[in-house]
Amino acid sequence: MSDTPRPELESLLSRRARTMTASAIREILKITQQPDVISFAGGLPAPELFPLGAVKQAAETALNKYGPAALQYSTTEGHPPLREWIAGRHGIPAQNVQIVTGSQQGLDLLGKILIDEGDTVLVEAPTYLGALQSFQPYLPSYAEMPTDEGGIDVDALDTLLGDLARQGRKPKLLYAIPNFQNPTGRTLSLERRRRLVELTAQHGVLVIEDDPYGELRFEGEALPSLYELGLQLAGDVNRNHVVYCSSFSKTLVPGLRDAWIEAAAPIIGKLIQAKQGADLHTPTLNQMMMTELLPLLPAQIETVRVAYQARCTHMLGQMGEHFPAGVDYTRPQGGMFLWVTLPEGLDTAALLPRAVERKVAYVPGQPFFARGGGLNTLRMSYSNATPEQITAGMRALGETFREALA
Amino acid sequence: MSDTPRPELESLLSRRARTMTASAIREILKITQQPDVISFAGGLPAPELFPLGAVKQAAETALNKYGPAALQYSTTEGHPPLREWIAGRHGIPAQNVQIVTGSQQGLDLLGKILIDEGDTVLVEAPTYLGALQSFQPYLPSYAEMPTDEGGIDVDALDTLLGDLARQGRKPKLLYAIPNFQNPTGRTLSLERRRRLVELTAQHGVLVIEDDPYGELRFEGEALPSLYELGLQLAGDVNRNHVVYCSSFSKTLVPGLRDAWIEAAAPIIGKLIQAKQGADLHTPTLNQMMMTELLPLLPAQIETVRVAYQARCTHMLGQMGEHFPAGVDYTRPQGGMFLWVTLPEGLDTAALLPRAVERKVAYVPGQPFFARGGGLNTLRMSYSNATPEQITAGMRALGETFREALA
Repeated sequence: MSDTPRPELESLLSRRARTMTASAIREILKITQQPDVISFAGGLPAPELFPLGAVKQAAETALNKYGPAALQYSTTEGHPPLREWIAGRHGIPAQNVQIVTGSQQGLDLLGKILIDEGDTVLVEAPTYLGALQSFQPYLPSYAEMPTDEGGIDVDALDTLLGDLARQGRKPKLLYAIPNFQNPTGRTLSLERRRRLVELTAQHGVLVIEDDPYGELRFEGEALPSLYELGLQLAGDVNRNHVVYCSSFSKTLVPGLRDAWIEAAAPIIGKLIQAKQGADLHTPTLNQMMMTELLPLLPAQIETVRVAYQARCTHMLGQMGEHFPAGVDYTRPQGGMFLWVTLPEGLDTAALLPRAVERKVAYVPGQPFFARGGGLNTLRMSYSNATPEQITAGMRALGETFREALA
Repeated sequence: MSDTPRPELESLLSRRARTMTASAIREILKITQQPDVISFAGGLPAPELFPLGAVKQAAETALNKYGPAALQYSTTEGHPPLREWIAGRHGIPAQNVQIVTGSQQGLDLLGKILIDEGDTVLVEAPTYLGALQSFQPYLPSYAEMPTDEGGIDVDALDTLLGDLARQGRKPKLLYAIPNFQNPTGRTLSLERRRRLVELTAQHGVLVIEDDPYGELRFEGEALPSLYELGLQLAGDVNRNHVVYCSSFSKTLVPGLRDAWIEAAAPIIGKLIQAKQGADLHTPTLNQMMMTELLPLLPAQIETVRVAYQARCTHMLGQMGEHFPAGVDYTRPQGGMFLWVTLPEGLDTAALLPRAVERKVAYVPGQPFFARGGGLNTLRMSYSNATPEQITAGMRALGETFREALA
């Protein structure tokens, strides 16, 4: 080793880098990934449902159809036929669609173009941990919206917006997952959606609607998105204050990283510029492959819905059978997740090692709260588990909870 | 349209978003993409050299070998066999390699974890425009390093570092492309590399070495990378103050967006956290496909080298024949670009429409300078042009320059 001085590398990190932490879930997943442990901790779609043969065919078709262009640099906005198909779902122009490399990139780019240090961002309590990770580098201040079994409590939001206004804090944006929310599985009612869209419009707050699970409804009626309600209110796609994010990760496959944002021109214009600097464009072949897979999408969604409904129903049944009185849980109408609340005073993080001893794992709820709390909550995913795993897992969890309550 | 108030969307943009602009090159490319125009403006690898059949085979092999796992979420760090192969090139552990979605994402993530607002970033004059776009959202202050025909003038850098120190400005990082630089095609000598690595170590400045073209040397001897020299100096992979970025975009194909960063543990650790928030992981299938393509890489690099050498030699020959006296240009030893300097007083942006009238296009040099200037310079790429296009193009450009000089 030479005697030449060298920079202390840690001292060169940016302020925002110092605030970054490893995803709590990622760390927990390491504990739960021991062999023999039945894990409901991850949020993985069921891989046995992936249309592997069709994906193989789509790769071949895209490479035959486009030749070397499928492997060349391409436009930042995205593959035109894919943008057009997405735009058609909401009847908007393709120019209002930006293809992104997974919804996660969509959240990062939106954070980048919207959040100044200290800006107030409204999030559900609890909310998607990955969104907090995407926004964090832009150093926002979070305000949590109270939630109940129906998702965001819009009366409480009204009060909160008033309180914040009196403190001179005008929130910059509101982030919400109205359908089968991650982590709770809860869905916002039509009446609450309408009021949320109107309230945010009145208060000048941009809404980011994250909707990766919306197509995976297996119970009840589909509801209009916040984006559609915002479009009705604005009467103009380029004045809609709701931005819509969605993805093919939960309906088709996540590994191709094809997702999108729909937004008004002033937002889309800046997203394109931000995406140029972030990764130039989403992989060309992957967008072309996804376009080839679109005809398959309705049947694939149906397959996934049926499977997840069966898994969810079975899990709820087993929870009813094995969980002790006083343990509450959500009953999702779709998606991949449900949320368990233990009696106050219990700590799901402290209980996890005892569950793992019984060969079962979940994610403690606390990391899903932007400002902490929720010590007695946990998230489970039913999407990637067999009936046998669910039966054994709920029995073991029931025992863990009974022991803790004894 | 409803009367409900709506936020003025532009007013919600972040301060950093307001500083973003569309890539000047992107705007210029629109002008130059008229039919019949022979464009040397883009920076595209030659698509006819892409190993299309092998890529088709790689997709099939990866999907057969890994099954649904090729389409599932995967680790943020990247596909282990790909990381191991990359690490082996420099004899470092795989943990020091982070796979990224194109080198552009590498630059964005490095900007994110390193640059605080106002931090001084040293860049070549001129430098890669895309790096400026990646760093810009983190609001650096640029200091330009003087360059000459040998790339960065390290004597001048020494003086500059002293001047900055006297102003109380300690640069945070230095960004450089030592091999066949974009936009100039220039290569830094071994002696300059050594001094640059030592100087930056002494001054506590992190170095980002961007090396997408290094394998495409068609003349002269390969030189050690700044990363390798930094490693020698530090004697420890986790204390190397040089960070290395490279990519398969120029050697194999760009459209899969497979690239990487090699760095010391404190940097890699933060990169992983930043990448989790940025896109979770680089597309799974694409990394597996690239791994399948690795055995092909040496032959593919040779194919590309031979082709680019022929194109470069032909372009230089035609420039010699058709360009008027007083027009100077670089003679690259590899890569995709060369750089033309017209006599002082001429403005290549003003001349571009006249060139386009003659059905030929280039990129004016000014956008490649972080702090402006270079009005009499331009960049051309020879990588994606036929001999006929080069012959016709250089004749037309020669006429354009003669007319301007007359």
